Amino acid sequence: MDHSLLRKAVYNKLNQTDKNDPIGQAIDVFLIFLISVNIVAVILETVDPIRDAYASLFFSIEVFSVLVFSVEYIARLWTCVEDPENKEFSRPRLRYILSPMALIDLVAILPFYLSFFVTFDLRFLRVLRLLRVFKLTRYSSAMSMLLDVFREEANAFFAGFFILIVLLILAASGAYLAEHTIQPEKFGSIPEAMWWAMATLTTVGYGDVTPITAVGKTFGALVTVIGVGMAALPAGILASGLADQLKRKREELSDQLRTILEDGIIDENEETELEELRKSLGLSPRIVESIKKEVLQKRAEQELKLKICPHCKASLE
Amino acid sequence: MDHSLLRKAVYNKLNQTDKNDPIGQAIDVFLIFLISVNIVAVILETVDPIRDAYASLFFSIEVFSVLVFSVEYIARLWTCVEDPENKEFSRPRLRYILSPMALIDLVAILPFYLSFFVTFDLRFLRVLRLLRVFKLTRYSSAMSMLLDVFREEANAFFAGFFILIVLLILAASGAYLAEHTIQPEKFGSIPEAMWWAMATLTTVGYGDVTPITAVGKTFGALVTVIGVGMAALPAGILASGLADQLKRKREELSDQLRTILEDGIIDENEETELEELRKSLGLSPRIVESIKKEVLQKRAEQELKLKICPHCKASLE
Amino acid sequence: MDHSLLRKAVYNKLNQTDKNDPIGQAIDVFLIFLISVNIVAVILETVDPIRDAYASLFFSIEVFSVLVFSVEYIARLWTCVEDPENKEFSRPRLRYILSPMALIDLVAILPFYLSFFVTFDLRFLRVLRLLRVFKLTRYSSAMSMLLDVFREEANAFFAGFFILIVLLILAASGAYLAEHTIQPEKFGSIPEAMWWAMATLTTVGYGDVTPITAVGKTFGALVTVIGVGMAALPAGILASGLADQLKRKREELSDQLRTILEDGIIDENEETELEELRKSLGLSPRIVESIKKEVLQKRAEQELKLKICPHCKASLE
Amino acid sequence: MDHSLLRKAVYNKLNQTDKNDPIGQAIDVFLIFLISVNIVAVILETVDPIRDAYASLFFSIEVFSVLVFSVEYIARLWTCVEDPENKEFSRPRLRYILSPMALIDLVAILPFYLSFFVTFDLRFLRVLRLLRVFKLTRYSSAMSMLLDVFREEANAFFAGFFILIVLLILAASGAYLAEHTIQPEKFGSIPEAMWWAMATLTTVGYGDVTPITAVGKTFGALVTVIGVGMAALPAGILASGLADQLKRKREELSDQLRTILEDGIIDENEETELEELRKSLGLSPRIVESIKKEVLQKRAEQELKLKICPHCKASLE
Repeated sequence: MDHSLLRKAVYNKLNQTDKNDPIGQAIDVFLIFLISVNIVAVILETVDPIRDAYASLFFSIEVFSVLVFSVEYIARLWTCVEDPENKEFSRPRLRYILSPMALIDLVAILPFYLSFFVTFDLRFLRVLRLLRVFKLTRYSSAMSMLLDVFREEANAFFAGFFILIVLLILAASGAYLAEHTIQPEKFGSIPEAMWWAMATLTTVGYGDVTPITAVGKTFGALVTVIGVGMAALPAGILASGLADQLKRKREELSDQLRTILEDGIIDENEETELEELRKSLGLSPRIVESIKKEVLQKRAEQELKLKICPHCKASLE
Repeated sequence: MDHSLLRKAVYNKLNQTDKNDPIGQAIDVFLIFLISVNIVAVILETVDPIRDAYASLFFSIEVFSVLVFSVEYIARLWTCVEDPENKEFSRPRLRYILSPMALIDLVAILPFYLSFFVTFDLRFLRVLRLLRVFKLTRYSSAMSMLLDVFREEANAFFAGFFILIVLLILAASGAYLAEHTIQPEKFGSIPEAMWWAMATLTTVGYGDVTPITAVGKTFGALVTVIGVGMAALPAGILASGLADQLKRKREELSDQLRTILEDGIIDENEETELEELRKSLGLSPRIVESIKKEVLQKRAEQELKLKICPHCKASLE
Repeated sequence: MDHSLLRKAVYNKLNQTDKNDPIGQAIDVFLIFLISVNIVAVILETVDPIRDAYASLFFSIEVFSVLVFSVEYIARLWTCVEDPENKEFSRPRLRYILSPMALIDLVAILPFYLSFFVTFDLRFLRVLRLLRVFKLTRYSSAMSMLLDVFREEANAFFAGFFILIVLLILAASGAYLAEHTIQPEKFGSIPEAMWWAMATLTTVGYGDVTPITAVGKTFGALVTVIGVGMAALPAGILASGLADQLKRKREELSDQLRTILEDGIIDENEETELEELRKSLGLSPRIVESIKKEVLQKRAEQELKLKICPHCKASLE
Repeated sequence: MDHSLLRKAVYNKLNQTDKNDPIGQAIDVFLIFLISVNIVAVILETVDPIRDAYASLFFSIEVFSVLVFSVEYIARLWTCVEDPENKEFSRPRLRYILSPMALIDLVAILPFYLSFFVTFDLRFLRVLRLLRVFKLTRYSSAMSMLLDVFREEANAFFAGFFILIVLLILAASGAYLAEHTIQPEKFGSIPEAMWWAMATLTTVGYGDVTPITAVGKTFGALVTVIGVGMAALPAGILASGLADQLKRKREELSDQLRTILEDGIIDENEETELEELRKSLGLSPRIVESIKKEVLQKRAEQELKLKICPHCKASLE
């Protein structure tokens, strides 16, 4: 087979360009399975009795995984020039290497190779392999939608984080002033008091550190109320952001529907096209039904208005 | 009485097809009462002094309940062929047996009969009867609306759950690295550290396990902040989902209203029809008032457009 | 002065029918102050050293308050027939006595008089006087708006509460099965396990009772996740309910505005009328500005459409 | 240079009237950096070993900062008359001194000067310098948007706070009645019981104080449920408020867009104008795209209405 044709074929299999290709699907399932096995293995390996009993099994899994992930990395690197988005750039390979997904893939295998040259803390090295969990993000479309909202509302989240920092400093310093003489081991300095302040402002409330003086408790009660407001911030931002995202998706779909309905009917092709758009937008069939109704009704209203010309009395259609 | 007529009658009583039928209502009230008594009995039976004092009472309740629930199960199974939805299928009885509600009904009685053949852990068996609480879901229309939102937003909830799992793994492994040498009995492995990570990411914060090193506390504080964001996710999804559900219900009602108002008036029949739709949609009377106003106003606007020129008195159309 | 005129005057003072009446305002301020003093007194009276030191002061406050509240109760009862809403009923006084606000007023004074006849537990009696705090609800318009949303969404809240009860039963029974042999003093029965289940499902997480077995912790972690979803329910319902309430208020105001703008201008009288409506709806001036713009723009659009008659070419205005 | 010209220039540099002025930007960056260094220094100074080791460094930072902040304060006071908003008032300097931002600036330097005259508790004095963190609010536009929502919804938040106080009193008195005989050291008076009530109503749940009697636990479980509702209040208010703010911002932008599109095209100047408006409103590019589409579509619809009859070719107007 021609080199560039092969590259194209591998690219298509690896990136699921055709959703119904069984080989591409098999590769995806296999990789998701291998990543999951890896994560479970790394987690279980930290349990001493399990590690001692299955040491060789864990090592086999590791070697096999690194092998597969290395092949995957090289294959992706080799075929990345087939990506239409990459083609416009002068150095597509370098651009790919520096993309977030490629860096995650690299982090998944690098520690293994590095361990031949550098002597790490073994435990730390092992746990680092858990970062392979990020490889899974490639396969979750629903998650990327949620992340979209986070990105869209980044400004608001950042502002909320800034408010949290300011409140953290004030809460910790207040608790420090009230408690440092009575509980020097727990509120001995502002950084120490921050542990309590953080647990309170986020309404986690461990209770390992709590104020005991009357002033400290009164101040602490105030901080718990502020904490509730603080915890409400991301919920409010997310609710408003998700509602707005839904609104925009609805608009996108009703734009598409309006184009499709220009000739008055939805044929089978258009039906499948619509269904695919619905899925890629993550909308439920019910919402699509309600959008359809809305668009059809608006069309009917407009037709009513334009029925007859006021001059020649002929129908406008 | 004819066999099939009887079956039809029993079906109607059991499924409240006529909301005003007193016998059907009495059956419903009796079953809800019996299920409630059962649940209270099972809960109290786990309190040793109460069980010892009222053992025979609890046994009588159990035998009587199983008897009633068995009769109910058989009656539902017998009459399920009357269900219009089931009629279309070739094997309506098998389809009914495998439906969620029928399985719940089976689970409510099966343990009792099984205990004659198999020797279970008695306590476990008793508690299993608590699953009868699910039989109540048949009677709550408001709950089925909330569950609708959960189903509608299943994708988003699943994505949120996936993010939670990823964060759980990362939080637990971070805490494990920071604390496992100092607190080997609490953070000795990643699975053990997950208990802390879960309590923190969900902002529950028991406080039975907390980091004590400076690195662990700093990392822990970061995890509490992420936990607040995590806990905000379902609130945001639900808020946006409920708002969308309300929007669709409003549309449904205003569609209906527009049809009803075609002749310009709402007669008594239409008033009751509207009221029933309102109840089945779970909308408050106030919302219906606001929809009515909206529809009427739009109608008035459209009529205005079709009016007559004030100068030449010709129709503007 | 005429009896019925006096009654009318007292009614107006007590119910602030004229918002700018200084005597009515003074009565309100005095009653709010007295209720607040009462609540602080009852709270401080439970602190032993304070009660011992100021016993006679507390008694004086109590006697004076009951005197004032009794006069208030009698005055309200006497004048209630002036209430336009009450006038339609055949027994306006009885209807008033059974209204929530009158019952609260009665609860505020009754314990004092009862203590002459019955011997209560003194502490319980004292604390009961805290119910006077409900008398304050008469004066908070913002709170009545929030309560409106609660009432409007009562169905959804009830469904959420029912789900909570079902989850509570299942969580408690699961924890009971997992932990009752290891921690019989904390998970010895399902009712005992409910304390842990409740603290977890509401994400309060005291940590005084926590599972310690592996099965119990795994189950507990699952319950914490469900708890986050549970805690999200009221937030979602409230967010959607508040948004809907705002929508309806906006509509009410824009209806009013459309009527006012029929003649094209807003004169001074209409300006004050609008301002009062705005305040009674609890809308911010900004929102009113945005509604004004919207209404004006829509008017402009409609005027544009109707400018010229298509037949005689004369302006339609 | 002329005195008033110099004043104008200093005013412009300090208040960033020209966003692209490098000197103004440098001053901003320097002040933000200095404030941040100050806050870190004050926090670290409370850690005894660090304070002992770097005492002279901390003192130098303090003297230098107060010097800079004093110069800044005097410069702002001197140039405040250039503020267009201030110019309308008869005493612009006094008005500026009493403005929130100027008071924050004063609080940042006053303690240092006061310490020469009055002998404070040194620790308290040091921590007071943390209020300098508020100086940062001048630079955060995203935060001012969040604060806008808080201000807009102030009524609702106040009502929520009032409900919280009422619930706090009732929860604390209930727990006091149930537990004060068994746990006199923790629930000995209502003010003491408030610590538990507050931690529970805000779902913080420290667990240092928990009811142990059956009545107390049942009542406590009820309070946790109310706490979840309570904690949902600010989330609901914020979600609805943020959604409304977004709605108004969208309207503002689409008003602007409609004006710009009057001539049918968006030239380069208008593009930059729009981009600046977008940034100042804190809207994401995606939302602007969706607004653009909406406005263009509405324009198209209106143009359609004003079109020409396909039969007689006369204008439909």
